[in-house]
Amino acid sequence: MTIYNSKNITESFAAVKWSDGKLILLDQRKLPRDSIYLEYDSASDVADAIKEMIVRGAPAIGVAAAYAVVLAARAAYKASVDNWQTAINAELEILSASRPTAVNLNWAIAEMRKSFDSIEGDPETALLEVATRIHDGDIAANHEMGRLGAELISPDSQIVTHCNAGALATGGYGTALGVIRTAHRNGLVKKVYSSETRPWMQGARLTSWELQQDNIPVNLVIDSAVSSLMRAGDIDWLIVGSDRIAANGDVANKVGTYSHAVSAKYHGVKVMVVAPFSTVDMQIQSGEDIPIEYRSAEEITDFNGVRVAPKGMEAINPAFDITPANLVDVIVTEKGIVQDPDAEKMLAIFGKI
Amino acid sequence: MTIYNSKNITESFAAVKWSDGKLILLDQRKLPRDSIYLEYDSASDVADAIKEMIVRGAPAIGVAAAYAVVLAARAAYKASVDNWQTAINAELEILSASRPTAVNLNWAIAEMRKSFDSIEGDPETALLEVATRIHDGDIAANHEMGRLGAELISPDSQIVTHCNAGALATGGYGTALGVIRTAHRNGLVKKVYSSETRPWMQGARLTSWELQQDNIPVNLVIDSAVSSLMRAGDIDWLIVGSDRIAANGDVANKVGTYSHAVSAKYHGVKVMVVAPFSTVDMQIQSGEDIPIEYRSAEEITDFNGVRVAPKGMEAINPAFDITPANLVDVIVTEKGIVQDPDAEKMLAIFGKI
Repeated sequence: MTIYNSKNITESFAAVKWSDGKLILLDQRKLPRDSIYLEYDSASDVADAIKEMIVRGAPAIGVAAAYAVVLAARAAYKASVDNWQTAINAELEILSASRPTAVNLNWAIAEMRKSFDSIEGDPETALLEVATRIHDGDIAANHEMGRLGAELISPDSQIVTHCNAGALATGGYGTALGVIRTAHRNGLVKKVYSSETRPWMQGARLTSWELQQDNIPVNLVIDSAVSSLMRAGDIDWLIVGSDRIAANGDVANKVGTYSHAVSAKYHGVKVMVVAPFSTVDMQIQSGEDIPIEYRSAEEITDFNGVRVAPKGMEAINPAFDITPANLVDVIVTEKGIVQDPDAEKMLAIFGKI
Repeated sequence: MTIYNSKNITESFAAVKWSDGKLILLDQRKLPRDSIYLEYDSASDVADAIKEMIVRGAPAIGVAAAYAVVLAARAAYKASVDNWQTAINAELEILSASRPTAVNLNWAIAEMRKSFDSIEGDPETALLEVATRIHDGDIAANHEMGRLGAELISPDSQIVTHCNAGALATGGYGTALGVIRTAHRNGLVKKVYSSETRPWMQGARLTSWELQQDNIPVNLVIDSAVSSLMRAGDIDWLIVGSDRIAANGDVANKVGTYSHAVSAKYHGVKVMVVAPFSTVDMQIQSGEDIPIEYRSAEEITDFNGVRVAPKGMEAINPAFDITPANLVDVIVTEKGIVQDPDAEKMLAIFGKI
């Protein structure tokens, strides 16, 4: 694993890219202060990077996992030319277990697996093509979601977004921020409020930064001030991404989304969830069955390595929450939108898997 | 202003005390890591301490202001033996303007002023008696509120509290935490969830610490996870303090209270507001007329002096929000409780001022 700085990379920032036979991840823990790119040539190192949130955001995790399968296949082929399809399993299990909530991770691994049987000889080139197709497909999907979502936005809209569902969370462009970008380009956005998103501060660090770079007017607020903004009548839309959408339209997303959605409902603010089709998990009936990741208490009790809470303090740290479908006005995917989602409408658009 | 450590003080912690002719404040910015007491002998220094949140919490600010009037009177009497009641005004104006939302600050100054005209000669002893009476009265009021509030709590209750309305926020014992303390002593409390309270982390730093010291079971959560806890059916009560209560029962309290109250309403969780009578401002018709303090953006964009948000990022930082009376189930004061508060019931209990 080599560390090099953004100055060594000529293109504009990308959360995930493939270069010179290696996977390159922008270390999102360090943004916006430092733009540091890390280089990976093993799938289990990528699993660690996902766990440690060097790369985060469900679609970006999916794209990173697709490239990680290429790395795993390279190692497996080196270990066993005749039987790499079996030799790869140990590494893919580690990769698959790195985070539980985002379905895109296992979706990408499954997509990659589909071509295993048809490959003859060294699998790297063929698998890299599949991974690149997944990556490019994600970017294209984001632009399509941007188009579909922006059609729902009225002029002069004020929008709250939570966490980061932007270019950094995807293959590029963004889901929720993709809609906001397209809407802004179409002259529809008056202001975006980015809620800081405790404890990892993706709103403060990442969304603020992305929108600032695109000259989209953005204000940072603490998560718990969003309700007051809504009460003051200042907000038209809550627009967020998702880590997994159940067959009934229930939405798993970053902790705090549910709180915002309850406030939105109370104040008549509309709620848009923007996510690629790979985030939709038609095998899961409802949000109750979506596994929620609990992370370490230290993410809350400490900040930047400095202890905030008293010693020995217990903290509960769910990384995600479930927003039930009845609080969601519209789900936007690249395959179409679902207004007032429920199981029937979801099935009509997405079909059985 | 002398700095000395808690080791030099033999009693247990107190946010505010008078010792040896000086006002002593526990520096709450440093808790729970360090217990540092600061010593004051000028009212304008106390005003700075209030502004900088060395002392915070509406009732504690009131008690500190009462003692600060003693310091101001001492200086005024030194400057003008015959006319100290006028000479004191400049300092009292500085003190009065230190923070806008908590009404207790100006209530305490007004209480102290009431005896100015009847004092002959050096006012210090007489004014110290009034300030001590305010301080002792606040502690007694907290115990009475604790008794009244705890009567409403059922066994095995799980309680969310926000910010710190404890011993540290008052003359001693606490308002919301006073109710929790009494309820716990009566065997009624299963668990308390302390929401961390961005951006100043009073929940993480102060409430956690107070409850931990009293062996009351407490878990720390981020503010935006409270809605999910409520949805899981784990919460019976939201119990908070207040910085000002309007004549119609609208409540100003630490930002995030409104968000919690909206969630409480949505999930059928009861809401109790606990505050001394000095917090009730019958001259203000509704929450809309309560001045909300906006603090510097840096409180949000930086943490412990480390920049979190990108440079140049704008942030909106209201320190308080308004919870309308219709979201409040009961207001508890030492003068009695108001169920489902409205202007009529408030008037019946508190009378015109």
